[in-house]
Amino acid sequence: MNDTLKVFSSGSNTALAKEICDNIGIPLSQIEISRFSNDNLFVQIQESVREKDVFVVQSFTHPVSDHIMSLLLTLDALRSASARRITAVIPYYSYARSDKKDAPRISIAGRLVADLLKTAGADRVLTMDLHADSVHGFFSLPVDHLTAVPTICDYFAGSLDLSRAVVVATDAGGAKRAGKFAERLKISMAIIDKRRISDSDVKQGLVVGNVEGKNVIVFDDEISTGSTLVATIQTLERAGVRKIYVGATHPVLCGNAVKNLKTSPITEIVVSNTVHIPKEKQFPKLKVLSMGSLFSQAILRIHTGESVSALFQ
Amino acid sequence: MNDTLKVFSSGSNTALAKEICDNIGIPLSQIEISRFSNDNLFVQIQESVREKDVFVVQSFTHPVSDHIMSLLLTLDALRSASARRITAVIPYYSYARSDKKDAPRISIAGRLVADLLKTAGADRVLTMDLHADSVHGFFSLPVDHLTAVPTICDYFAGSLDLSRAVVVATDAGGAKRAGKFAERLKISMAIIDKRRISDSDVKQGLVVGNVEGKNVIVFDDEISTGSTLVATIQTLERAGVRKIYVGATHPVLCGNAVKNLKTSPITEIVVSNTVHIPKEKQFPKLKVLSMGSLFSQAILRIHTGESVSALFQ
Amino acid sequence: MNDTLKVFSSGSNTALAKEICDNIGIPLSQIEISRFSNDNLFVQIQESVREKDVFVVQSFTHPVSDHIMSLLLTLDALRSASARRITAVIPYYSYARSDKKDAPRISIAGRLVADLLKTAGADRVLTMDLHADSVHGFFSLPVDHLTAVPTICDYFAGSLDLSRAVVVATDAGGAKRAGKFAERLKISMAIIDKRRISDSDVKQGLVVGNVEGKNVIVFDDEISTGSTLVATIQTLERAGVRKIYVGATHPVLCGNAVKNLKTSPITEIVVSNTVHIPKEKQFPKLKVLSMGSLFSQAILRIHTGESVSALFQ
Amino acid sequence: MNDTLKVFSSGSNTALAKEICDNIGIPLSQIEISRFSNDNLFVQIQESVREKDVFVVQSFTHPVSDHIMSLLLTLDALRSASARRITAVIPYYSYARSDKKDAPRISIAGRLVADLLKTAGADRVLTMDLHADSVHGFFSLPVDHLTAVPTICDYFAGSLDLSRAVVVATDAGGAKRAGKFAERLKISMAIIDKRRISDSDVKQGLVVGNVEGKNVIVFDDEISTGSTLVATIQTLERAGVRKIYVGATHPVLCGNAVKNLKTSPITEIVVSNTVHIPKEKQFPKLKVLSMGSLFSQAILRIHTGESVSALFQ
Amino acid sequence: MNDTLKVFSSGSNTALAKEICDNIGIPLSQIEISRFSNDNLFVQIQESVREKDVFVVQSFTHPVSDHIMSLLLTLDALRSASARRITAVIPYYSYARSDKKDAPRISIAGRLVADLLKTAGADRVLTMDLHADSVHGFFSLPVDHLTAVPTICDYFAGSLDLSRAVVVATDAGGAKRAGKFAERLKISMAIIDKRRISDSDVKQGLVVGNVEGKNVIVFDDEISTGSTLVATIQTLERAGVRKIYVGATHPVLCGNAVKNLKTSPITEIVVSNTVHIPKEKQFPKLKVLSMGSLFSQAILRIHTGESVSALFQ
Amino acid sequence: MNDTLKVFSSGSNTALAKEICDNIGIPLSQIEISRFSNDNLFVQIQESVREKDVFVVQSFTHPVSDHIMSLLLTLDALRSASARRITAVIPYYSYARSDKKDAPRISIAGRLVADLLKTAGADRVLTMDLHADSVHGFFSLPVDHLTAVPTICDYFAGSLDLSRAVVVATDAGGAKRAGKFAERLKISMAIIDKRRISDSDVKQGLVVGNVEGKNVIVFDDEISTGSTLVATIQTLERAGVRKIYVGATHPVLCGNAVKNLKTSPITEIVVSNTVHIPKEKQFPKLKVLSMGSLFSQAILRIHTGESVSALFQ
Repeated sequence: MNDTLKVFSSGSNTALAKEICDNIGIPLSQIEISRFSNDNLFVQIQESVREKDVFVVQSFTHPVSDHIMSLLLTLDALRSASARRITAVIPYYSYARSDKKDAPRISIAGRLVADLLKTAGADRVLTMDLHADSVHGFFSLPVDHLTAVPTICDYFAGSLDLSRAVVVATDAGGAKRAGKFAERLKISMAIIDKRRISDSDVKQGLVVGNVEGKNVIVFDDEISTGSTLVATIQTLERAGVRKIYVGATHPVLCGNAVKNLKTSPITEIVVSNTVHIPKEKQFPKLKVLSMGSLFSQAILRIHTGESVSALFQ
Repeated sequence: MNDTLKVFSSGSNTALAKEICDNIGIPLSQIEISRFSNDNLFVQIQESVREKDVFVVQSFTHPVSDHIMSLLLTLDALRSASARRITAVIPYYSYARSDKKDAPRISIAGRLVADLLKTAGADRVLTMDLHADSVHGFFSLPVDHLTAVPTICDYFAGSLDLSRAVVVATDAGGAKRAGKFAERLKISMAIIDKRRISDSDVKQGLVVGNVEGKNVIVFDDEISTGSTLVATIQTLERAGVRKIYVGATHPVLCGNAVKNLKTSPITEIVVSNTVHIPKEKQFPKLKVLSMGSLFSQAILRIHTGESVSALFQ
Repeated sequence: MNDTLKVFSSGSNTALAKEICDNIGIPLSQIEISRFSNDNLFVQIQESVREKDVFVVQSFTHPVSDHIMSLLLTLDALRSASARRITAVIPYYSYARSDKKDAPRISIAGRLVADLLKTAGADRVLTMDLHADSVHGFFSLPVDHLTAVPTICDYFAGSLDLSRAVVVATDAGGAKRAGKFAERLKISMAIIDKRRISDSDVKQGLVVGNVEGKNVIVFDDEISTGSTLVATIQTLERAGVRKIYVGATHPVLCGNAVKNLKTSPITEIVVSNTVHIPKEKQFPKLKVLSMGSLFSQAILRIHTGESVSALFQ
Repeated sequence: MNDTLKVFSSGSNTALAKEICDNIGIPLSQIEISRFSNDNLFVQIQESVREKDVFVVQSFTHPVSDHIMSLLLTLDALRSASARRITAVIPYYSYARSDKKDAPRISIAGRLVADLLKTAGADRVLTMDLHADSVHGFFSLPVDHLTAVPTICDYFAGSLDLSRAVVVATDAGGAKRAGKFAERLKISMAIIDKRRISDSDVKQGLVVGNVEGKNVIVFDDEISTGSTLVATIQTLERAGVRKIYVGATHPVLCGNAVKNLKTSPITEIVVSNTVHIPKEKQFPKLKVLSMGSLFSQAILRIHTGESVSALFQ
Repeated sequence: MNDTLKVFSSGSNTALAKEICDNIGIPLSQIEISRFSNDNLFVQIQESVREKDVFVVQSFTHPVSDHIMSLLLTLDALRSASARRITAVIPYYSYARSDKKDAPRISIAGRLVADLLKTAGADRVLTMDLHADSVHGFFSLPVDHLTAVPTICDYFAGSLDLSRAVVVATDAGGAKRAGKFAERLKISMAIIDKRRISDSDVKQGLVVGNVEGKNVIVFDDEISTGSTLVATIQTLERAGVRKIYVGATHPVLCGNAVKNLKTSPITEIVVSNTVHIPKEKQFPKLKVLSMGSLFSQAILRIHTGESVSALFQ
Repeated sequence: MNDTLKVFSSGSNTALAKEICDNIGIPLSQIEISRFSNDNLFVQIQESVREKDVFVVQSFTHPVSDHIMSLLLTLDALRSASARRITAVIPYYSYARSDKKDAPRISIAGRLVADLLKTAGADRVLTMDLHADSVHGFFSLPVDHLTAVPTICDYFAGSLDLSRAVVVATDAGGAKRAGKFAERLKISMAIIDKRRISDSDVKQGLVVGNVEGKNVIVFDDEISTGSTLVATIQTLERAGVRKIYVGATHPVLCGNAVKNLKTSPITEIVVSNTVHIPKEKQFPKLKVLSMGSLFSQAILRIHTGESVSALFQ
């Protein structure tokens, strides 16, 4: 069965692609991605994919536009090379944050990129922890939507004394996400409310819920520059918390994120490897949990036609 | 200019369609909608729409499937009758609530219905207060998304002493919506948190924020059977509020809603007329604010090519 | 081979779906179809369909709009649940009657519904005795078009003395259909001509062909309210026929159909079970021939890639 | 208004295209259609059509494949030359006869050609007297469907004593068509029934209805080789008719048609000019009624956005 | 594996189709292609193709429009007969020559025909030596693009003394093509430059490169009327070449081609059989190399999912 | 008329966009293009475009992927903001060079990007000097294809003594392009042939044609790193040319291009401004001819519906 299964990396997270292949027990398939002198990208599939069941791993990390273009070129090359089925495996789908029209005359880019993937030849999508659940509906292709939440939960359950712990959402928009996290850990939750409480008390973060003297786990979907996180931590410290832990699926870690987090009073930051973190950006209290096993199981189940939702039951 | 503009009702909210026409100063265009003996629907446009700019008003109210099918038949009939442009005006788009995969193997019906509208011939959509903002991204057609929130705010601002008022969201999912409402009224807000707070205190609603002795305005997007609302009111009363007001865009009012709300300790319920409320379901403390003027202005601006977002600035 | 074959019922004719499954020797697959308080339909596939060859049985019977919507939701749910192939099995496709523009500015709904099925995710269609043969051309999907005519013929051939029998079409539009029926039974035919014969003799039915003293079999594609049939029988009795039999594929039987037919001078009415007839609507002289075996054979042939047209040779 | 209207001929019926232009008062637009040495067709539009409302006249007459290909090339050239709207005017759509699957594994070519026209760039279709009304539903483009029936009726009404006239359909399939013709002339009708009447009396045409001593008008949609017509006339003569007239929209007149009809006992044959009849194929008792005025009115109404169905009321 | 593979001929090159089948070891599948009296084409697939992997062989030779139409009808019939996959095998794709807009308001017909093939139901295309490589990009379907160049090279390598041979391109546009040919034979090349060299020396062909006393192989993609070839030969003779050989993939051989070439001073003309040459057009110095083996290998590799490009390595 | 015309720059060549606007006499429309911290691009149209005829200027220059993505986001934002028509003005379409499959399993990216533009909402494309003419056929949208060749010709005609001049193509692939240039200037041409001439004389450039003692104008479509150009000049100097001029449409000028060309023995390099050259990359012998007037005329003609091809007659 596996002889028809091929996994490629389109360049942004080859480490994860290799881990997936190791888990499945197949070699990572060969592809060449280069750049012409006029800055055009060039993609060549280096082995026959005719009638193969092909998966291409690509996270939308910096430089995002290049990574999207190289994925689109890869999909198109695979299609015209007669792959039987092409699944775009997008561990981190950055444009999921662009999911509504909160200003006039903008693009709902999460939908646009979904349409571009279809145009380029994707037959299906496999992704993880989209910023909002409804982004799933932007795709006209079948989507399998994995989550790192149970893995991160299990890590904290195995390493922390949860009897004094509380989950904290960084704002109301993240309350549902943090709530699922809290439910799984069977602990209580709190919310940082950054919205106006009264006219004289604007935009300062208030902790909703009881956190004093507790160990808190701040949970979010991604850590970008870390500035929201830093502000949250200041609010929590003012509220008298004990230790602060952070959990997040996507460690985008751009700008001064690493510098700020390294020196912050956070005890441990637990993230997944949907976004590749190069050696030089790693630091002791950053714990990276691999999604390689989960993605490889999902890919095998898609390949053999077994239920993917059963992975979470 | 207006001689090429035609407004039809596809049957579910003809009262609103007529109001829109009155505001514009044109007659409601004629259409026949009937049913064959085998329960097939039959739609006939009764006047020439060739090269006309046509708007069809249809809310997705009970019986929803019939109202969707009659809209689809109307759109198809208009297209094949050579209308120049067809805008589906859907004041209440019920399937917006079906916006994610929160269970395996279900349809994200909000997306499916958006695709059906396109298949049937709609060129654009004009709608109001979709359950989630990201549902906008389900449409591949241009959408103008109106909101009743300012109108409802203005009503409360003009009738209530807001100095002691608080806006309340019925759950965390509605916090953003209630927040916008509170911001416009420049008052504080609170949330009913129905998620688990601790293991011994499950699923009982807790009021997050200070409501004691205040007048509260519970704000939601739609009132369906009213059971969530009734539970919210009980929680608020236990929390010692003074008077309770309710604001909501879509008065679906199904099941025992009217009976329950009539006898509830709510002082006033303010809704829009996106869903038609027949005489026999109206009751004294239910205040219905007409969206006829807003829809007519949006339609005129779409027709003449002026900015619709300017309506909200 | 059969372990990848799944048959679902979308609710309108579960009895037939069960019979099909019994014939194939597989259990009917599980699906939940329910309704939210705002009258939105909700469909959930209850078992994994990933890479399965799925057939969904749904007749377009009363309430037609709900049955179409629930089929569309089922198709969409199956597609996004990664079914390998989805066949909409529509024993009775009611909108086939809406097959032309006999009035200005109407929808050719038989075509529209065909397009909606494709939008929602159907890969193929299996149906029976469409009102007009050319409705087949409305579908851009492959269609297998079964017929109940041979089964009904065989029943009459086995139960009647055909030496004195004549087939009768209820109008000129049905002449081709009745002709095929007559050819198979090797008997002669007659037509009720309801069109104007002369200026003074308008719209009264005339029997074209010799029926006096004969046993007649009136044959049509569907029986709806039965009013056409009742008028035909009166005309035939005036013409001096002996016994009257009726054959029809689709027993829609709406309005007063059952009441009228029960008490009519018809000896026997032979129909198929493309439309489910509940116990309380059955009556002694109504003979229902099951299409379960024919549909199950067609489904198996589609599943295994054998000729379906061979079923009729 | 008319300065944006252009009419082209794609070669098969330039005479009709010119007549249309004369009626509108514009010159026929210039196009070059030629053939490369490898038998590829070459089409060049000879004048700017940018933002113009363009109509291309092409009947699907012998050689049909060349005429379809040259129309497709013309449509594509017009689209890429930025015509604002392109209407394929197809007075005779030959593939309408291919409207069902009366044998396994054939193409419903009437649908296929409709799809090809859309692919090549047609925005709308204007046609006349399609073989079956439901062929209209094969098009996903808006279609205006004209008819020559009233014009042919009016001709007979003005030239014949209708008091002793009967309309005859050549077979049951044409009964509806002949019926409309009879209704308009307010005379009675008859049918030639070529289906088996009894086992000993197979396939011989029988006249259904009273024609003895009458003047008959045989009405059909097209005259191809004329062999059906010749057989019909023999049957009618045996039945003792007086004079025989023939009416038909499309004078395809292929094979020995002209030779057979010239010498037949028909008094007069009345056809339209949807199919161009060159001088050498014309003969005294063939009366050709021009559709130039009707098509020009329809084109003007499409161009200016007036009702086309009003032409027939 | 091969029991699901079927090869049909759509009529223009049945000889090649048969050869392909012989090479594979399967019979040519049965199809009926005929013509109605109104010149409509009629195609019927004569055996079940349900779930089969079907290849249809059709070269676009005279009469091109008929051959394209019959291919389109065949594709549509196969699709609606539920073929699993349909590959259009087009050994000679004549419209590849129509690949750019070298005049205003023309169709890029190479693209249009590619789109028509998709509309009619082709899933893939297998073709040979397209006039320009970029025509490949006109197809949105996967294309396998074979070449006869190695076979023709090998023939010359096996029959000629190449030590004194030069390859000649008939114009600059063919230089790349001839260059590949020369590279494979490891001999030098020359070009006939028909462009203006100076104002007084217009349009006369000049030989660029050294050909005096050499044996030349003129190489082009197709031979149509042969007039370009005749002019090239005159130029080469004036330049003092020894013997002249000609190689070309597609022997269109229309107009006076056979007559002109027979009597020309060419020693041998080597072509493939992508275009069928009937007996009466063959002549002694015309050598036809069969592509039957190459096409059969490509078809088998497509069928079994092996690399097609490996055929050329 | 012009009040409905809007021109935007998507960021890569705002200078040209401004020039276009100055020529038309309208202000450049306002747009905001920025970047989120996770490297997602953000585009907001800053003024109403409802029912406007919108042109977006964007060259595909370094960084190409970002410039393509920002164009796609702009197109999508314009579409959903209800622009009446959207034309992508792409003065330099870099991916035109990716126009064929000269290696297995690559993307024909020129086609892919054309499809992406359509998916994102472009209605038409306006571009200049595509690398190959047949790339035009990759677009399913109407394309207006401008050329800088006449402008560059006119410049040389006005500044050089052409009596001793020769046009040189850098390789056989550019021969057609250089030929058109030579024809317009009415001078002769030569070609650098880099293909193998004999086995011992590989890959060295040879000058085909007479250039000794002449002034040469090397003409190509784009100058990228300039390395081909430098090699060509060396070959020409060896061949004894007098002065060397260079003409090219697209001054991509990447890598060491500026450094190499500044110090080369070229007398003058004439390019257009389809690619923006910042001050620091300009140098004395680089002459930039503005295409602002030509693009503005084309845009006005597209806007008002006049012939664009007439610009070149």
